[in-house]
Amino acid sequence: MTASSPLPQGSTIGILGGGQLGRMLALAAARLGMKTHIFCPDQQSPAFDVTPFKTVAAYDDEAALAAFAEAVDVVTYEFENVPAATAEFLAQRKPLRPGANALAISQDRLAEKQFLSARNIAVAPWRAVHEPAALDTAIAELGLPAVLKTTRLGYDGKGQRILRTPDDAEAAFAALAPKPLVLEAFVPFDKEISVVVARDVSGTVKSFEAAENVHRDHILKTSTVPAGIPAALERHAAMVAKAIVIALDYVGVLGVEFFVVSRDGRPSLLVNEIAPRVHNSGHWTEAVCITDQFEQHIRAVAGWPLGEPARLADVVMENLIGEEISGVPGAFDGNARPHVYGKAEARAGRKMGHVNHIRRD
Amino acid sequence: MTASSPLPQGSTIGILGGGQLGRMLALAAARLGMKTHIFCPDQQSPAFDVTPFKTVAAYDDEAALAAFAEAVDVVTYEFENVPAATAEFLAQRKPLRPGANALAISQDRLAEKQFLSARNIAVAPWRAVHEPAALDTAIAELGLPAVLKTTRLGYDGKGQRILRTPDDAEAAFAALAPKPLVLEAFVPFDKEISVVVARDVSGTVKSFEAAENVHRDHILKTSTVPAGIPAALERHAAMVAKAIVIALDYVGVLGVEFFVVSRDGRPSLLVNEIAPRVHNSGHWTEAVCITDQFEQHIRAVAGWPLGEPARLADVVMENLIGEEISGVPGAFDGNARPHVYGKAEARAGRKMGHVNHIRRD
Repeated sequence: MTASSPLPQGSTIGILGGGQLGRMLALAAARLGMKTHIFCPDQQSPAFDVTPFKTVAAYDDEAALAAFAEAVDVVTYEFENVPAATAEFLAQRKPLRPGANALAISQDRLAEKQFLSARNIAVAPWRAVHEPAALDTAIAELGLPAVLKTTRLGYDGKGQRILRTPDDAEAAFAALAPKPLVLEAFVPFDKEISVVVARDVSGTVKSFEAAENVHRDHILKTSTVPAGIPAALERHAAMVAKAIVIALDYVGVLGVEFFVVSRDGRPSLLVNEIAPRVHNSGHWTEAVCITDQFEQHIRAVAGWPLGEPARLADVVMENLIGEEISGVPGAFDGNARPHVYGKAEARAGRKMGHVNHIRRD
Repeated sequence: MTASSPLPQGSTIGILGGGQLGRMLALAAARLGMKTHIFCPDQQSPAFDVTPFKTVAAYDDEAALAAFAEAVDVVTYEFENVPAATAEFLAQRKPLRPGANALAISQDRLAEKQFLSARNIAVAPWRAVHEPAALDTAIAELGLPAVLKTTRLGYDGKGQRILRTPDDAEAAFAALAPKPLVLEAFVPFDKEISVVVARDVSGTVKSFEAAENVHRDHILKTSTVPAGIPAALERHAAMVAKAIVIALDYVGVLGVEFFVVSRDGRPSLLVNEIAPRVHNSGHWTEAVCITDQFEQHIRAVAGWPLGEPARLADVVMENLIGEEISGVPGAFDGNARPHVYGKAEARAGRKMGHVNHIRRD
């Protein structure tokens, strides 16, 4: 079997990470007759309930990683912060899909911006900031307000500070340093959208339609499809997403977040960030697409051809955060399709599930 | 908590039987944040790959059944041939949904026909046959051709013989006896349809649209929706299905198979059989309904309100029998949504998976 042969049914897909994304990947793999092996340090991982094989170990436990690699046919992951050493260790033993380069770029905001800018993909103006003096220069060049972010390990609003006046600079730097930082110009945007795109081992690319995303407290609250943007902008978003997965020689599903901004009175796109995995803003696909993002990712990493991403109805995906999960099933009307992640404790700010509200004609 | 209180998320649903139906029930339960415990004598059960808890034991192993009952919050099943003693043993310890009466009636063709006939639900003419003389009388009364069937444990064409001439009677009786038998008049039908209906603990009833079923070698090959029948007939089928679940005080999903026959030049319905479980002819719901039959069954047995069974697209469900499973994914076009059951061995006549072919507008 060559590296790009499709895995036969009954093969085992190794997944790093046992959260809700790993769980939904495991459910999709099961529907395709594949087995999964979840590797996660957390004994209480929600994905463990739906997988035949699991390993509870740290991501730097080489003995556990070696045994995991031995037991699986391909390795993928549910989160972009897989340590580089872990990725390298596994990639030497089994196909790692998506590849280590996608991890390296998406783990580091600076590398990501450099990668995108080098390909003439528009992003918000930015400057690397490794010392207080550089921050002053960056503020002078980009203007305020602006957002100071750690280059690594930020998510859901963590690891960032908004600078509104020059006086905010010192405290923000102190709060985030000594980590490498990047200052991003604060770009007024009309809306946020995202595109989930997939590429298979033969190089075929298919993307789902764009979703309009609304955040609350820095956490995604809703994704609405269609996104209510001009057709040309929708095509452009898909084109950018395609260019990214081709440039990365990518295999799997990737999420691209965009800001829709007005430039010379016309809507235009800036890439906010990319995520080398199934994406929260793609959970709507589960309810209304012929192939959803989870099946699409499993197909790609298994070396199978991609499925059809076409959509059968309009939909609004609503994240259920913390205690909102207790609304299932009573609080939602008949066109709601709930998905509960099976997490034991409904902590504040924790993604506990989602509901797809389907708009019937 | 009263018997009809909804089970909280994270509860454990016990499922007797670990085949593809149990597996798909477990997948649906996981999406609702419920855990499952699969009880099955077969170590290789496909459902074991997607459940956190399992018991491998015989259905008459009382120690294993007692421990299973202790570990779960409610008990359901994927097949109607659960031994009566097993059902009774479990029902004394935990809610059994659907109830033992549904099992008793659907396990026995004679009891089923008596149940239906007593409610003026039309079935093909039939006679109980417990001895050769009774068979001669039955043939004289019903005419030939007719079908001689065991009253219990027949499925997919097993346990039945077609009688075309009186000379066939003796051999057919010898082949099937000493089991109790029933002779059914052979009714020329225009098509076979089925309705999957659900009833929740509060008595609400919702049914999926009718499917037209085509069999090959006595095994379901395709289910097509819409079924291509007049609207009045579709309504009548739903009404019959509803009458059955009300009469049984039923909780869960139930499949009703009908023959569409011509009576006085107009299409009419005869009930062929009922199955107190999710049904192969309802697998189409997974691809195009807001709530599918598996989620609907889990909702009902968990004491939750039913979901919305509305359909978003036309669909043809195709069973993949034996080696046909090797066609996934290559042999199907982009509008196909495959489901592979994860069975190790593709034996002839074995249901290995299905594909939903979605018809987009």
